[in-house]
Amino acid sequence: MITQKEITLPAYGRGYHIITSIIEKHLPEKPDQGILHIFIKHTSAGLTINENADPSVRDDMESAMAAVVPEDNSRYTHTMEGSDDMPAHVKTSLTGMSLSIPVTRGRLNLGTWQGIFLCEFRNGRHQRKLVLTLYS
Amino acid sequence: MITQKEITLPAYGRGYHIITSIIEKHLPEKPDQGILHIFIKHTSAGLTINENADPSVRDDMESAMAAVVPEDNSRYTHTMEGSDDMPAHVKTSLTGMSLSIPVTRGRLNLGTWQGIFLCEFRNGRHQRKLVLTLYS
Amino acid sequence: MITQKEITLPAYGRGYHIITSIIEKHLPEKPDQGILHIFIKHTSAGLTINENADPSVRDDMESAMAAVVPEDNSRYTHTMEGSDDMPAHVKTSLTGMSLSIPVTRGRLNLGTWQGIFLCEFRNGRHQRKLVLTLYS
Repeated sequence: MITQKEITLPAYGRGYHIITSIIEKHLPEKPDQGILHIFIKHTSAGLTINENADPSVRDDMESAMAAVVPEDNSRYTHTMEGSDDMPAHVKTSLTGMSLSIPVTRGRLNLGTWQGIFLCEFRNGRHQRKLVLTLYS
Repeated sequence: MITQKEITLPAYGRGYHIITSIIEKHLPEKPDQGILHIFIKHTSAGLTINENADPSVRDDMESAMAAVVPEDNSRYTHTMEGSDDMPAHVKTSLTGMSLSIPVTRGRLNLGTWQGIFLCEFRNGRHQRKLVLTLYS
Repeated sequence: MITQKEITLPAYGRGYHIITSIIEKHLPEKPDQGILHIFIKHTSAGLTINENADPSVRDDMESAMAAVVPEDNSRYTHTMEGSDDMPAHVKTSLTGMSLSIPVTRGRLNLGTWQGIFLCEFRNGRHQRKLVLTLYS
């Protein structure tokens, strides 16, 4: 069985944000076993799973990724949309635009320390659209 | 329902190439909702989704990834297949070898600016094999 | 049809380790076509697919990723768990925490050179938990 819905997240500023509870709220069915697929319909924001406990992990993820993909327009030709834009595209491809998470006994089967992150790579605040597809 | 097929892409040279229309052409069914899974059977070429409009994004992706994983044999021990080979392996793992894309009302449910990219990380031209699996 | 099981890998030390045969052994069904989804329930170890032949590729992957995400506590604020910890979180998000692999005629439909890697990003030896979900 497949159920699918599209949701719009609240506007988040640049950085890594835990959205696990938002996703759980939208989990339409509670199957005994299945997979939840989450897809972000954007090219400058990504999705990942990482440590849900210490907020410093989210801050360090942001600065570590800024070191991996420097915000320096002299490196890029696609510069019209601002110095944060092309690095945001690269970070999106490095981080990924979808997650597939096992669902077991009606719940996301995440590890103890795993949380779902929206990775907002652009400056400013943006409302990102997700497609949630549950197959069970 | 699951349908699966294997396809061979045209030969592409090094860089990022939009293959969205090739994938759409091979979408065998037009389900109301489902997921299309695309898997590349190679270790030095990847798949990603990124901006489909300005070709400079694809050029900058190539050069940005070359900066992340330098083509410098003094860094590697696996050097027999050329200076582009080991960086290609690393880039493949960073970028990913599969995509899962929601299908909604018979179409790939991509965002306005999202296109499917073949990322050819080797020099020379290569014909890459994909496995397409649609579940609906 | 969906079948799901949770397994614990043997303890592996830091580095990249081929686990293809372990995964194949746990493939519960031999469907004609399907997808095997593998999810790691941790935030400092990842999963990827890369070259299965020359062990030097695995060594170079480890050192290349150490260059991408330096182990240097002066760059991070989340430092209490050791200098390998925050880089391990970043590497996990860059590499990914799940794989989806086509199954065709009862077997993982991998390319000739593709193997499944556990990427242990922490120092020391750890037993990592995976959730395997097969849909067919």
